[in-house]
Amino acid sequence: MKKQFAIIGLGRFGGSVAETLHAKGYEVLAIDKNPNHVQDIARFVTHVIEADSTDENALQEIGIRNFDVVVVAIGEDIQASIMTTLLLKELGVAKVVVKAQNNLHGKVLEKIGADKVVYPERDMGTRLVHSLISPNILEYVELSKDHSIIEITANRFFANHTLLDLDFRVRFGCSVMAIKNQGELIIAPPATYEIREGDLLFVIGNNKDLKKLQEQAYPEDE
Amino acid sequence: MKKQFAIIGLGRFGGSVAETLHAKGYEVLAIDKNPNHVQDIARFVTHVIEADSTDENALQEIGIRNFDVVVVAIGEDIQASIMTTLLLKELGVAKVVVKAQNNLHGKVLEKIGADKVVYPERDMGTRLVHSLISPNILEYVELSKDHSIIEITANRFFANHTLLDLDFRVRFGCSVMAIKNQGELIIAPPATYEIREGDLLFVIGNNKDLKKLQEQAYPEDE
Ligand SMILES: Nc1ncnc2c1ncn2[C@@H]1O[C@H](COP(=O)(O)OP(=O)(O)OP(=O)(O)O)[C@@H](O)[C@H]1O
Ligand SMILES: Nc1ncnc2c1ncn2[C@@H]1O[C@H](COP(=O)(O)OP(=O)(O)OP(=O)(O)O)[C@@H](O)[C@H]1O
Ligand SMILES: [Ca+2]
Ligand SMILES: [Ca+2]
Ligand SMILES: [Ca+2]
Ligand SMILES: [Ca+2]
Repeated sequence: MKKQFAIIGLGRFGGSVAETLHAKGYEVLAIDKNPNHVQDIARFVTHVIEADSTDENALQEIGIRNFDVVVVAIGEDIQASIMTTLLLKELGVAKVVVKAQNNLHGKVLEKIGADKVVYPERDMGTRLVHSLISPNILEYVELSKDHSIIEITANRFFANHTLLDLDFRVRFGCSVMAIKNQGELIIAPPATYEIREGDLLFVIGNNKDLKKLQEQAYPEDE
Repeated sequence: MKKQFAIIGLGRFGGSVAETLHAKGYEVLAIDKNPNHVQDIARFVTHVIEADSTDENALQEIGIRNFDVVVVAIGEDIQASIMTTLLLKELGVAKVVVKAQNNLHGKVLEKIGADKVVYPERDMGTRLVHSLISPNILEYVELSKDHSIIEITANRFFANHTLLDLDFRVRFGCSVMAIKNQGELIIAPPATYEIREGDLLFVIGNNKDLKKLQEQAYPEDE
């Protein structure tokens, strides 16, 4: 049987988790103490319940321990977030994922048994910074401390050149794993592939080499 | 000269943007109308100002138009977010990035000239769902509608096999671009590389093929 999820706290984060899970075909119970939030999400999930999750009886009546994963997405009210997490673990929920407001909150959550602690605002803040300081890097995946994959748009520096005549691998020390040309993806492109302006290049390599590539191809970036 | 940034609204998202930029060596002015938030961030940015960003005079006195990028990270107060964005564009700020609470808010922001609109909570909600429904997929990057890169942990299905004897490419239709073994990254691993349990595999391919791989390697995932 497919996993069953309960989401407690239907702010923007919890609401997005609930709706996305439901759209992917999972059973989702959405819980909030605010009747407006409960009402707004009703069409997008399997069940909704208006309840205060710090109320142990309410959680028991819901049969919360039958859910495989419970996500606690309560925000400002750190005390409620901690209380709820504690109750869920005491009631025997196997996997409890909790959104933390800051490091201290996160540490407390881990101590009381949260199985996963997430920091959505902080993580997205870091991601936005990447995109602001390197606007030509569309996507950035850290593989290790020293290595990453980046997605870049081919500008005139690359246009009408093949990987071969750019001497890509030798010159930059990193490799083009895939190229997206007008929606078509070419995995492990041949050295003779001629790059077009606007192609998306997926490049893997050492961070230093990737930085060198970026500086040469996009000198206007700071 | 390096770009100069101003961040308006120092909640968790805005605070993370400001601190990360500063940690990367950029000049950052942090603005909030709440004196506590201003005080908390002071050590982590270049300058702080306590001001209401809906006050045109305050923005002018700050010399806001001299900043290359202004990030508006005001949350609940949608009206203040809209007003601030409008003023920033009128005062001639080149690039204004704004956090939106929902679609409607985002549309208004675009209409009045926001250069980039972001939905941090919603985006992280979608990302969390990926990790909940496919716990063995540590990282997931969409390359196109049909293709992705996934990061998986080698379990017993892979352990002590080479890519060659797994017949990886033929069997799954996707390719291992890199393997991380005990912190060391091997790019384009040779077919004779023997996978160890716990190795991280970075696999590129068609979503259907990646799903097939996932189903065979991790039948316990639902
Ligand atoms: N004890 C509780 N029981 C049930 N729901 C709760 C409880 N406390 C808070 N909530 C709900 O959690 C939701 C999220 O809380 P809040 O708005 O404070 O968080 P937030 O961090 O601003 O959220 P987001 O950033 O995801 O929009 C709200 O809809 C609130 O009604
Ligand atoms: N007009 C304004 N001028 C300056 N700062 C403002 C203004 N309005 C709101 N702020 C500040 O913006 C910050 C973020 O606002 P709020 O807490 O409502 O957003 P949020 O979405 O809950 O934030 P986050 O999820 O990032 O923590 C707060 O510190 C608030 O004081
Ligand atoms: Ca809120
Ligand atoms: Ca938030
Ligand atoms: Ca807030
Ligand atoms: Ca909030």
